[in-house]
Amino acid sequence: MPDTPPVTLRDVQDAAARIKGVAHRTPVLRSRTLDELVGAEVFLKCENLQRVGAFKFRGAYNAASRLSAAQLAKGIAAYSSGNHAQAVALAARELGTTAVIVMPEDSPRAKLEATAGYGAEIVTYDRYTGDRVAIGEALAAERGLALIPPYEHPHVIAGQGTAALELIEEAGELDALVVPVGGGGLIAGSATAAKGLLPGIRVVGVEPEAGDDTKRSLAAGHRVSVPVPRTIADGQAADIPGELTFSLNQRLVDDISLVGDDQIGDAMRFAFERLKTVLEPSGASGLAALLAHRVAPLPRRIGVVLSGGNVGAERFAEIVAG
Amino acid sequence: MPDTPPVTLRDVQDAAARIKGVAHRTPVLRSRTLDELVGAEVFLKCENLQRVGAFKFRGAYNAASRLSAAQLAKGIAAYSSGNHAQAVALAARELGTTAVIVMPEDSPRAKLEATAGYGAEIVTYDRYTGDRVAIGEALAAERGLALIPPYEHPHVIAGQGTAALELIEEAGELDALVVPVGGGGLIAGSATAAKGLLPGIRVVGVEPEAGDDTKRSLAAGHRVSVPVPRTIADGQAADIPGELTFSLNQRLVDDISLVGDDQIGDAMRFAFERLKTVLEPSGASGLAALLAHRVAPLPRRIGVVLSGGNVGAERFAEIVAG
Repeated sequence: MPDTPPVTLRDVQDAAARIKGVAHRTPVLRSRTLDELVGAEVFLKCENLQRVGAFKFRGAYNAASRLSAAQLAKGIAAYSSGNHAQAVALAARELGTTAVIVMPEDSPRAKLEATAGYGAEIVTYDRYTGDRVAIGEALAAERGLALIPPYEHPHVIAGQGTAALELIEEAGELDALVVPVGGGGLIAGSATAAKGLLPGIRVVGVEPEAGDDTKRSLAAGHRVSVPVPRTIADGQAADIPGELTFSLNQRLVDDISLVGDDQIGDAMRFAFERLKTVLEPSGASGLAALLAHRVAPLPRRIGVVLSGGNVGAERFAEIVAG
Repeated sequence: MPDTPPVTLRDVQDAAARIKGVAHRTPVLRSRTLDELVGAEVFLKCENLQRVGAFKFRGAYNAASRLSAAQLAKGIAAYSSGNHAQAVALAARELGTTAVIVMPEDSPRAKLEATAGYGAEIVTYDRYTGDRVAIGEALAAERGLALIPPYEHPHVIAGQGTAALELIEEAGELDALVVPVGGGGLIAGSATAAKGLLPGIRVVGVEPEAGDDTKRSLAAGHRVSVPVPRTIADGQAADIPGELTFSLNQRLVDDISLVGDDQIGDAMRFAFERLKTVLEPSGASGLAALLAHRVAPLPRRIGVVLSGGNVGAERFAEIVAG
């Protein structure tokens, strides 16, 4: 009897029922210009239009919603400098509880304010001397909070997979699904949903060239770390895959494409000029792989997750105005 | 017996049937943050995601598609420095005919290239010494082309009205519809559709403070011109309402709100940061009126047409990065 994977299609479907009416069912965008440039039919799942501006809310809410009433009365916690911070803060507010978020003290003010704006308590640390995991765990233990990790948790992964579930419900049969890879939670959940629904689908991850830890790990057959990546795709600057996410991705991911920062910038510019939509660098990497013809062999009908749109105006202007 | 207006709900419905499958049925966006800021339920019709990046394609295609086969064999023409140029060029291509577009020789290169990219022939003129109407009419007469005006035509107006038709189909009962006003075609068509479907709906136009020709004209009871408006909302820089559009808007428009350039910039920034969507200044003016609390009394359920998203990267960066 084959062993049951830690996250199944059924888990993703359960997550979909839980987030319904709380998370947005984000639109699927089409563009004839894009189809012509790529040479295929492309379906863009706009997670930049998700609440908090990224797919992260799906997993954070699914995980938080499964905590006991007693735990919710005590509160939840997370450590993140990125979109997961806002996602957990909003999930806490939606569930009527409180969140403590551990963030670097030099986080962009906009991110600190956005997280605080959802009612979370922010605890800052020095990213050069502090250990965010230790701080988060100590805080959680001391105050009895439930820690919601950014990807190493089956409920988080199942939640992220709902993006692919909705995409396939709307687009129908797809030959391939292209998903950005950071810690690996989005692709693990999405691949679980996609292969559960369409066993023949090819799942292609996209990493920045400087942060190809998952590609190297898949080739090596075990988790491999790379030097801390220097890339504009800050949401994908992981240096080693998660343990749980890697165990899933080893079974489910067919290939990893790599894209350079220039190609990510080109994709952000294309999204701005032609799709009129705002993508953060990590959110554009799947689109970048297609525009740079780095998905081969080329599928006929392709789903792509545009994973987020949180980028400051100045940074965006710098990249898009070139 | 009341006289029949030159454009009716039926005309808009006919236009909807004609553009189906050719124009995009653009998404309707919701935002809880926006609803909280405004204090109402707001439904955003994303015409920035329309083909050519603006609502203009609806009217141009509807008008062009009604020409005889003999006329289509000869070709069509338009004069425009803005979105109507691209709209007519694309409509011609879709209908298998050719377009000649009269554009100022100092038009932004991106606009000239985009229009040419749809296969149109560009005829340039000096905007300080040339008369685009005379040039367009002479060209049309000489070559036997059908001239498609940007708003002074019942088929163009009926086509633009399909934006409101779709919005109401999707959002259901609305108390008010907020629509940017330039030459007046979009609001004339939209008001025709909206009041035909929902007789009690309030239709509110939005003009830039510097270009309040329609507001003044409605107050005066006849068409009044204003000095050539200086505003960032280039698509709304009309100095006098159209004759046909004004005759419709006199019957159908309940009120005009005015917004300043700063408020339009704020709305573009809000759309960028919170909605992750790109709006050109004219496309943001309806949203600006709501965010600046210039729609009073405040309706409970409000539809807003985000009319376009064509803005160069540098200009966008300048406005949004503030």
